[in-house]
Amino acid sequence: MRRISLTLLAVLAVLNLFGVNGAGAQSSSDPLASWREGPAKAAIVDFVTRVTTDGSPDFIPPADRIATFDNDGTLWTEQPMYVQLAFALDRIRELAPQHPEWRDRQPFKAAREGDLKTLAAGGERLVVELITATHAGMTTDEFAAIVRNWLASARHPRFNRPYTELVYQPMLELLSYLRANGFKTYIVSGGGVEFMRPWTERIYGIPAEQVIGSTIATEFEMRDGKPALVRLPQIDFIDDKAGKPVAINKFIGKKPVFVAGNSDGDLQMLQWATAEAGLRFGLIVHHTDAVREYAYDRDTPFGRLVTALELAEKNGWVVADMKESWREIYPPSGR
Amino acid sequence: MRRISLTLLAVLAVLNLFGVNGAGAQSSSDPLASWREGPAKAAIVDFVTRVTTDGSPDFIPPADRIATFDNDGTLWTEQPMYVQLAFALDRIRELAPQHPEWRDRQPFKAAREGDLKTLAAGGERLVVELITATHAGMTTDEFAAIVRNWLASARHPRFNRPYTELVYQPMLELLSYLRANGFKTYIVSGGGVEFMRPWTERIYGIPAEQVIGSTIATEFEMRDGKPALVRLPQIDFIDDKAGKPVAINKFIGKKPVFVAGNSDGDLQMLQWATAEAGLRFGLIVHHTDAVREYAYDRDTPFGRLVTALELAEKNGWVVADMKESWREIYPPSGR
Repeated sequence: MRRISLTLLAVLAVLNLFGVNGAGAQSSSDPLASWREGPAKAAIVDFVTRVTTDGSPDFIPPADRIATFDNDGTLWTEQPMYVQLAFALDRIRELAPQHPEWRDRQPFKAAREGDLKTLAAGGERLVVELITATHAGMTTDEFAAIVRNWLASARHPRFNRPYTELVYQPMLELLSYLRANGFKTYIVSGGGVEFMRPWTERIYGIPAEQVIGSTIATEFEMRDGKPALVRLPQIDFIDDKAGKPVAINKFIGKKPVFVAGNSDGDLQMLQWATAEAGLRFGLIVHHTDAVREYAYDRDTPFGRLVTALELAEKNGWVVADMKESWREIYPPSGR
Repeated sequence: MRRISLTLLAVLAVLNLFGVNGAGAQSSSDPLASWREGPAKAAIVDFVTRVTTDGSPDFIPPADRIATFDNDGTLWTEQPMYVQLAFALDRIRELAPQHPEWRDRQPFKAAREGDLKTLAAGGERLVVELITATHAGMTTDEFAAIVRNWLASARHPRFNRPYTELVYQPMLELLSYLRANGFKTYIVSGGGVEFMRPWTERIYGIPAEQVIGSTIATEFEMRDGKPALVRLPQIDFIDDKAGKPVAINKFIGKKPVFVAGNSDGDLQMLQWATAEAGLRFGLIVHHTDAVREYAYDRDTPFGRLVTALELAEKNGWVVADMKESWREIYPPSGR
């Protein structure tokens, strides 16, 4: 059996070489067709091959093939602002007539006017105030419906496409490739878990139970004689930075072996997962393509990337340079 | 295709009838062989058949086949005390020499003396003090090793068997039966999640990521230059009563369609899951067998069952009377 699979591997390697030499005549069966040949793609394929080859010293049993992905800026576009912030601003505008007390108060004034500078300068406190004002007071079922409705009509200001179409085609392929190789793929995002769950299965193939994110407190109560969970205006947990390893441990109870992120919010998740003795994979998406998407790292309020990039080489994390590594950015429209 | 599977169902039904008429000559292929023929078993089989039959008005897609099980008293024995409490008492005895300040203080004195009356009377406050004193201060990896070591040597005081052998054979079969029918099985327990995860895959076939429980706060830090999660002496969440729907929503993001419990701690989980319009299943294990296990409901500090039992009929929850419904209680020794 061992010999047969090695032969098979050799055949696959030769086929792959042909693909490379064919310069652009990419085989349609390449599971990572939107990744250009280069160090990032090669490292991914090498890792997956080694940890899934029976008898390999790097073999990882399927039960431990846990892969965690940040969402904003790693799986979909986070500029000119987090999608969830765009949702919150729209909610403020929609709810404003019922809240005259918001008229001259911050952060509501800035939210109504789309004044990102003031919002960004206000830090976490302002964001928390915005979130609790717009994401609470309804049942969990009602909130999921609000999110679905908004996503159906909202459009990205620059690309004029639904936000759920502005997901990265190479990352969709990576998710599928990992799953085809026995990995369980998770989202571990600073975004609200209930903002993501209504659509992640359809868009990413990631079911609700594999989405980890920030949470608002909820309370069980009887509403009209029917049990319901009501969302309270109170943050339960912020799943960012050092919160990411904490949440992964709490929700999954296993250390991921493959981690992908794009900002310093993913630093501790990368450190924690890749410090293990066995073969591990850390991926950083570096936004370098101002033409097809955005170019940013140091100077941005959304998705700031400094320390994780500095520590990448020392820790063996693979940096995917968007402009160089990705043949396509987004999937075709209207899929 | 439809006609073929109906024929197959008819054949299976006939085979099942033979099994019943054979009075005890239970077919070895019966997935619920340890359940006696009767209303509980019939209700389970009927539910699973209806929700998994393509084209049935009660059909539930596989992605929504979420089944949640309480652990203590539902999957394993919780008398004469919760297993985790036995663990905490042993930890207190082990750590006592390093803690002279515990000598005359409660709850440590009661813990050392195994004085359950004092411990039970102290309520949640005492339990929290015991847990934080014995379950914190180490990394998550270290704690998992402590749990594994303890379980390998600890024995139940009455049955003199490892606690992980005192799991209910009929419930093991039910878990397997549900999984074979496309259900994803979860534990949703008041017990500590990190007390369960080291062994649930081996004993129940439930992987760590499908175990939800009470949690202690953890903190990400660098220990000897290596990232670690350290357990803090601080309760993060108690996954009991109204906390169970809250935790299920937070961790899974879907309402279960099959719920099993044995105490009033499972009441809100039962209410929340079975109030939905579609076909749902609520199961209550009623401990009625003092000879083979224990008989208790109203008068016990561990696993008190009053309200959920009173509301069972009105809500259509199925009560499995342990003495009547279960042919076997435990699996054979040393499996």
